[in-house]
Amino acid sequence: MSDVAQPTTDRWGATPGVVHLVGAGPGDPGLLTLRAATLLGTADLVLHDQLVTPDVLALSAIEATIVPVGRRCGTVVVRHEDVIDRMASAAASGARVVRLKGGDPFVFGRGAEEAEALLSRGVPVEVVPGITSAVAGPAAAGIPVTHRGLSRGLLVVTAHTADGSEGVDWDLVARFDGTVVVLMGRAGWASLTRRVTAAGRPADQPAAVIAWASTPRQHTVTGTVSTIAGLADDAGLGTPAVLVIGDVVSIGERLAALASTPVVRAARSSTAVPA
Amino acid sequence: MSDVAQPTTDRWGATPGVVHLVGAGPGDPGLLTLRAATLLGTADLVLHDQLVTPDVLALSAIEATIVPVGRRCGTVVVRHEDVIDRMASAAASGARVVRLKGGDPFVFGRGAEEAEALLSRGVPVEVVPGITSAVAGPAAAGIPVTHRGLSRGLLVVTAHTADGSEGVDWDLVARFDGTVVVLMGRAGWASLTRRVTAAGRPADQPAAVIAWASTPRQHTVTGTVSTIAGLADDAGLGTPAVLVIGDVVSIGERLAALASTPVVRAARSSTAVPA
Repeated sequence: MSDVAQPTTDRWGATPGVVHLVGAGPGDPGLLTLRAATLLGTADLVLHDQLVTPDVLALSAIEATIVPVGRRCGTVVVRHEDVIDRMASAAASGARVVRLKGGDPFVFGRGAEEAEALLSRGVPVEVVPGITSAVAGPAAAGIPVTHRGLSRGLLVVTAHTADGSEGVDWDLVARFDGTVVVLMGRAGWASLTRRVTAAGRPADQPAAVIAWASTPRQHTVTGTVSTIAGLADDAGLGTPAVLVIGDVVSIGERLAALASTPVVRAARSSTAVPA
Repeated sequence: MSDVAQPTTDRWGATPGVVHLVGAGPGDPGLLTLRAATLLGTADLVLHDQLVTPDVLALSAIEATIVPVGRRCGTVVVRHEDVIDRMASAAASGARVVRLKGGDPFVFGRGAEEAEALLSRGVPVEVVPGITSAVAGPAAAGIPVTHRGLSRGLLVVTAHTADGSEGVDWDLVARFDGTVVVLMGRAGWASLTRRVTAAGRPADQPAAVIAWASTPRQHTVTGTVSTIAGLADDAGLGTPAVLVIGDVVSIGERLAALASTPVVRAARSSTAVPA
C-alpha cells in the first residue's frame, strides 16, 4: 500500500534518537533475528544484560560502544534508573541505541517497564521480540513443550518474584496437565520441586535442567521432579538454566536415542566464553 | 575446541540429505532467525505450512522448489504421512530440505512428531527454534506476557485438542494468576471465554485478540474476557490470531497512548499478501 514498495528485510537499521529494545534469544547467534542483527550492526551504543553471549555481541558494529548493564556487573550493581537515564540521554543526543536483553524482552525481561519509562520521557522506542529460553531451552535438549498425547499446553513461571515474596500457586503448578517451565530463581528450585510434589505432582514425572542452552557450554541433566534439583546441583549447573517438568522430557531422550548428532545443534563458538 | 575456529553465523547452510525443521516465526521476515534465513537461502526443497507468509518464503533460494503442505491446502487435504514420505525421499536423494513451520516447531507445531518419524527412517534432522506467536502475538500489540505487579507467569493453551475432545481444565485457566494466551481453535473462543468466566475468571478482566501479528495485515481488538470473542467476530478476525487474557493487556494500551508510532512495528510488505 505504500508508494514505494520496500522489502521488509531492507528496513532501516538502528535509528538516531530511538532506543531499540531487542531480544537476543537464548545465546546462539544463529537464533538472533534478522532485525536484531541489522540493529546491532548499525548501533552506536549497545547496552546489554549479563546473559547476552559474546558471540551475539560480536555482531555489533565495530565502532559501537558496548556496555554491560546487568543488574549486577561484577560487584557493581547498576541501578535500573541509571540505565534508563543513559539510554534517554544517548538517544537525545542522536545516538542509535540498542538495549539487548537475553531471550525475549517481554518474557520476564522488564522490557515493557523500560519502554514505558523511555516513552514517558519522549524517547521513541522499538521493541523487537527474541526467542525465549522458555521454549528454546527445552528445545535445545530436543524437548518440545507441547506434544500430542503428552502435553496440551505450557506454563511458564519463575521461582522468584520481583517483590521477593513467594506467591506461586503450587496447587496450580502441581495440577497443570501440561509442561511446566521454570525460569530464573535457580536457588529456589529444590524448594519448588518439593512443594510441587507435596501439592500432588507425581514425584516420578520426568524433569530436565538445561544450562547455557544453545551455546557451546550447553549442559543437560535429566531426572524426575523429585531428583532433578539435586542432580543439577551435583552437576554444578548454575545460571542461566531452565527447569522443565513434564512427560515431554521423555521425547528429548527418544530423539537423542534415534539421532547420531543432537537434533538441535548448539552454537559452535569462535569466541572465548567467560567461565 | 575445533581445529579451525569458525564464527557460528558462518555455519554451513542447508545440508544435502538432512531435513531442517525450521520455525518461521510470527510472519515478519525480520523476525526470522539468522539460521533460518541461511537454511532457506540454500535449500533445494521448501515445504511450508499455510501460515508461513510470502515475505518469509521470498527468502528462499531462487532455484528452490516451494511446496505448501498445510493440513488443508485449498480443498486438498495433505496427509501428514505423505509429507513425511516426501521429505524422507527428497533427503534420501540428496536434496537440501527445509520444513518451514509458522512460529516455533515445538509449540503446537508437531515438530517432534515429524523429527521422530524422520529419524526412525534414518533421515538426519536439525530443528531450528522460531519465535512463537504465544509471545510475539501479544508483543505485536505492545503487550508483555509478564510484568511486575500484573503477571508473574504465562499459560499457553489451545482451544482445540488433537483428538477433538475438550479436556481443558477451565478451573485452572480461570484461577491462574498470570497471562493466558490461547493459540488456535478460533471457532472455540466464544465457548472458551464463557467457560473461563463461569469458572471464576473476572468477566471484566482485559483481553485482546491480535490477528496476523507482525504482518502488514495486523489487526488488534481489545475488550474484556466477556466481550472479546464477540468483538473479534464483529471485526471479522479469523486466523491466524491469538487471544490474550490478563491485566497485561492494559500495558499495551498504555504504551500505545504514549507512543506516536507502534512500539512493535509490523512488517512492511513488498509482496501481495493473499486475502
